Amino acid sequence: MADLSRMADAIRFLSIDTFLKIGDGHPGTPLGAADIVTTLYNRHLKFDASDPTWPDRDRFVQSNGHGSMLIYAANHLAGFDKISIEEIKRFRELGSHCPGHPEYDPEAGIETTTGPLGQGIANAVGMAVAEEKLRARFGPDLCNHYIYALTGDGCLMEGISQEVIELAGHLKLGHLIFLFDSNHITDDGETCQAITEDQAARFRVAGWHTVECDGHDPASIDAAILLAKADPRPSFVTCHTVIGKGVPRIAGDRAAHGGKLVPQDAIDAREALGWSHEPHVVPDDLLLAWRAGGTRGRAERLAWQDRLDASEAEVKAEFQRLTASKLPDGWRAPLIHRKAQYAAERPNQPTVASSGEILDVLSDAIPELMSGAPDLEAATKHKRRLAPFTAQDRSGRYLHYGVREFAMGAMMNGMAAHRGVQPFGITFLVFSDYERHAIRMAAMMGLPVIFGFSHDSIGIGRNGPTHQPVEYLASLRAMPNLNVFRPADSVELAECWELALERRNGPSAVICTRQAVPTVRGDGTAENRAARGAYVIAPASGARQATLFATGSEVQIALDARKTLEARGIPTAVVSVPCWELFAAQDKGYRDEIIGRATVRVAIEAAASLGWERFIGEDGAFIGMSSFGASAPEDELFAHFGITADRAVSAVLERLDAKEEKRVPETV
Amino acid sequence: MADLSRMADAIRFLSIDTFLKIGDGHPGTPLGAADIVTTLYNRHLKFDASDPTWPDRDRFVQSNGHGSMLIYAANHLAGFDKISIEEIKRFRELGSHCPGHPEYDPEAGIETTTGPLGQGIANAVGMAVAEEKLRARFGPDLCNHYIYALTGDGCLMEGISQEVIELAGHLKLGHLIFLFDSNHITDDGETCQAITEDQAARFRVAGWHTVECDGHDPASIDAAILLAKADPRPSFVTCHTVIGKGVPRIAGDRAAHGGKLVPQDAIDAREALGWSHEPHVVPDDLLLAWRAGGTRGRAERLAWQDRLDASEAEVKAEFQRLTASKLPDGWRAPLIHRKAQYAAERPNQPTVASSGEILDVLSDAIPELMSGAPDLEAATKHKRRLAPFTAQDRSGRYLHYGVREFAMGAMMNGMAAHRGVQPFGITFLVFSDYERHAIRMAAMMGLPVIFGFSHDSIGIGRNGPTHQPVEYLASLRAMPNLNVFRPADSVELAECWELALERRNGPSAVICTRQAVPTVRGDGTAENRAARGAYVIAPASGARQATLFATGSEVQIALDARKTLEARGIPTAVVSVPCWELFAAQDKGYRDEIIGRATVRVAIEAAASLGWERFIGEDGAFIGMSSFGASAPEDELFAHFGITADRAVSAVLERLDAKEEKRVPETV
Repeated sequence: MADLSRMADAIRFLSIDTFLKIGDGHPGTPLGAADIVTTLYNRHLKFDASDPTWPDRDRFVQSNGHGSMLIYAANHLAGFDKISIEEIKRFRELGSHCPGHPEYDPEAGIETTTGPLGQGIANAVGMAVAEEKLRARFGPDLCNHYIYALTGDGCLMEGISQEVIELAGHLKLGHLIFLFDSNHITDDGETCQAITEDQAARFRVAGWHTVECDGHDPASIDAAILLAKADPRPSFVTCHTVIGKGVPRIAGDRAAHGGKLVPQDAIDAREALGWSHEPHVVPDDLLLAWRAGGTRGRAERLAWQDRLDASEAEVKAEFQRLTASKLPDGWRAPLIHRKAQYAAERPNQPTVASSGEILDVLSDAIPELMSGAPDLEAATKHKRRLAPFTAQDRSGRYLHYGVREFAMGAMMNGMAAHRGVQPFGITFLVFSDYERHAIRMAAMMGLPVIFGFSHDSIGIGRNGPTHQPVEYLASLRAMPNLNVFRPADSVELAECWELALERRNGPSAVICTRQAVPTVRGDGTAENRAARGAYVIAPASGARQATLFATGSEVQIALDARKTLEARGIPTAVVSVPCWELFAAQDKGYRDEIIGRATVRVAIEAAASLGWERFIGEDGAFIGMSSFGASAPEDELFAHFGITADRAVSAVLERLDAKEEKRVPETV
Repeated sequence: MADLSRMADAIRFLSIDTFLKIGDGHPGTPLGAADIVTTLYNRHLKFDASDPTWPDRDRFVQSNGHGSMLIYAANHLAGFDKISIEEIKRFRELGSHCPGHPEYDPEAGIETTTGPLGQGIANAVGMAVAEEKLRARFGPDLCNHYIYALTGDGCLMEGISQEVIELAGHLKLGHLIFLFDSNHITDDGETCQAITEDQAARFRVAGWHTVECDGHDPASIDAAILLAKADPRPSFVTCHTVIGKGVPRIAGDRAAHGGKLVPQDAIDAREALGWSHEPHVVPDDLLLAWRAGGTRGRAERLAWQDRLDASEAEVKAEFQRLTASKLPDGWRAPLIHRKAQYAAERPNQPTVASSGEILDVLSDAIPELMSGAPDLEAATKHKRRLAPFTAQDRSGRYLHYGVREFAMGAMMNGMAAHRGVQPFGITFLVFSDYERHAIRMAAMMGLPVIFGFSHDSIGIGRNGPTHQPVEYLASLRAMPNLNVFRPADSVELAECWELALERRNGPSAVICTRQAVPTVRGDGTAENRAARGAYVIAPASGARQATLFATGSEVQIALDARKTLEARGIPTAVVSVPCWELFAAQDKGYRDEIIGRATVRVAIEAAASLGWERFIGEDGAFIGMSSFGASAPEDELFAHFGITADRAVSAVLERLDAKEEKRVPETV
């Protein structure tokens, strides 16, 4: 078998030759961590490049995604079809499978999108939770693999790293192994400019097993990973490396991080490493060795397949369902039943309380549903009957994240990318900012994660402006591929939950109130009215003169205003808008009918106005927030900020008068 | 002098009586940490309640802001005028100085707004940096105080805590002292559900001095704080406490965190603590003792004032200027000079490069300007000539934050709240999500922090969608009290910098390109055209038929489109919109004139469309992004996503045709 160091050089030269070709790229990591990844892929990582999505494969996450050529080169060498040499050469070209940073594509051996530092390792921690869950449920015959994450200094400086390090240690995720590419260099230069602490000591405090190795000596790396696998704790392997190793001009220097290579670098590196091959040519012996490494897992996979086939039909079907990320048959029925109950009973309660009740129903129907609420289980009413997932008991389905919202978001992404778990996590809407970038990554990856939020407006009252979202609905609606739901009542909430769950190619945000809201929908049939994003919840009694748009707790205010307007002989429709994104996807005819441009239009939402012109045009009125909130009882706040039915009525009347005036001169 | 434990009970009963009165509040912290704060205020904290904004006072931050009654009760007892007993009774009422969570108000002894966990301690670290800066510049005679922050478990679980703990240890901020209210309880119950690690060990790894004490024994607390002050490192004082101490039903229980008190609790607490006074009555001896504590610092303050008065006139004036958060005379002239240069030289370069050049100019003009770019100094071109601020040299004005964006944001808020430093920090726009909640807090507090961003669109090219902001402009524009600037070129950038700096009552975001953009403004007089938020940068040659709105790098595209349209005989104006917020503040006449409703309107921005209807109405065209970006050379991306002058031209022509068609039937 070829020498692992030579095999690592194959990564180095694929990288160097590609960087030179396009005049771009981050050389530091692929050159510096080539030996780590080569040893991992060829001695430890359980995978079969001919079946990249084998559910029991080990997962490898390159958290320092800027060095993406490392994983592309390794995956090409190991034989992943999608990463051909042509794709390598198309590095960072439009449509290439080798984009600037690794993008989630399990068929290409890319387990998650990385680049925004800290989140890759957090995804890995989520994957390790999913692995534990599946192993607990199906036993080690069907699920028994490791999660490896390569991390640089950058990921470890981001705060999210500490959140997940603490959780992984606390939960004793023994199948989790971090490989630390420790080269003491970041973009700004020596790490000692910004950090003095001993990273391994930090992990030990958090309950991890730690070990170190020479990151350029395959035997040393191999031995360290062996120890890491043997330890029942999560392991942190410090690999001492030289950034940019192999290119003399930049090795060990900050220029290696993201600096450009020059042609002489390729010549010098060839000289230094004794590499005589043409650009992008990997000698046969090395390629053969790599390809052998890429199928090392085949026998294990076939044995696993035999075990799966030998399982009871039900077990096999269930395992396959879970790892295909499909929901179980019949998950919808109990939800629709619960919805019908709400429509019949018409409770006056916080939608977050109803969401907790719905979670209970869904937890029975969807055994893979796992929830969590970072230190807010009481306030969000979302733990309820689920037992905790702990170091001692992996059967639990509630994760005590602690006060760590960003960790929750990124871990949920890891669970969804791993498959086997349907993640749901809820916190106050105002803390969505803490996990916001994880929501973005879920949207970019198209993962079916459900982000729950409560305490969605000034309706929280006395806790004051720090806890009152104002700009959040707009900021979430601005994000591509995220469906943002703000249901009006318990019935609509059930519909939004249904839409969020059935969406398998992207995340949803389900946003609830803390304060009690009446049930405004008396109809609870199987038809999902929220599915069109906006709909007439109360029609005009005659030819529609006014349209009131509202979401969430403000739908009731719109209905109150409508009553007054109708009493004054102004036919008024109320449109509930639980989801802007779904509405935008409707045909123009439906949208025009809902919007009612010829009518006087008013929107009511206890939030910033940004974007509402889509519904109300340039002459409509917006009744909502234009500043941060305040600390006071919620009823007083709605009055103080003028979010009232009276103001909606006045806004309509003023605009009708103005229209009338306009019309008069024309007719006289 | 009265017994400190009895004085602490005064905090407890003000809290209990207030919670019972309003039926709301978080009792755990004011009851559990009353002894810590009482000992701190009456034995260590250097302040004078009769002059709350004395610049050399010690700062006290209650980072666990949900327990706000603690600081309100202490400040009332210590004699801060603003926190009268009437205000205490109006706890959480509209307009009260005692809102749900503490809100920045130095005159009331509230040094920063807290509530969103983790940020208070991060603000404190920023304050400690500001204190070191002032001490280095003016000597300990004028600046020599401590920064204390009370923290619970929640703040320490948030990732930002690790970021600032590492930085504070690394920077050896010896005047920083964290008091850890360690009661092993959070909202979800026992902390062991979510954390197993030894917090003090974690701080030791980061280079802190640690000490512990009995958090209910004033002598023990006193001794620990003495040790903390004496140590040259930042200190972490673990105070072992019982949450909710004093109310037997909830003491030591999660019910203490945010649970409601019942009347029997007040009776039982009075029994348990031997307190026989009516609600809200503090016996004279205790009040006198507290008031004596509240003015302990008076002699020190007067001595300090003497030293200040005895200083050279220039030194005194400069110190007073800095602590009044005023910019130096003449800061504007060199900036305007630089702007004139840009207008004359018309460089074709990234606006982030110009921003780096402008920072150089401003650094000379504004000695308190301190900058930082979390591990992106090369990419953002913003370190330049500034020397680093380090543990060894406090004269530096560049802070190596490491890869810690959230820490940067929250520390800048602390610096601005402390005064003496004008903070500026820059990172990629896509990482603004990481620091987003700190931006929110700056906006809520009205602090003059400048948040710089670069790499503002798909214009970054090959690095791909993870690093290409799409939704960010909209999400920042949604935030109240934040001015969001996206300048078109170097000239407009200089104007935006001027507007950001002169704004003393709120933060600004200044957003730059990575790619080169031409200088589109040839006029560089002292007039600040960006000041109106939007203006006609290229007028129509005749009666305006079309209006093209654009920001940033897309202004050039709009100008190109205008050229084509004008050549086709269509008088077209281009409106540059560097700041929506400033435009919204203009009078209606100006806004109407700019908007040009009678014209065909098209907006061009390489970002999400949310909100642009304000400019283009319901029939206008938006040319921008509706999905995440992609990895490819930037020119290809603009073509791929159709953000081109050709598309703008077509959009105008289509709409003109449609208008024409509409008009025809009317006239026939």
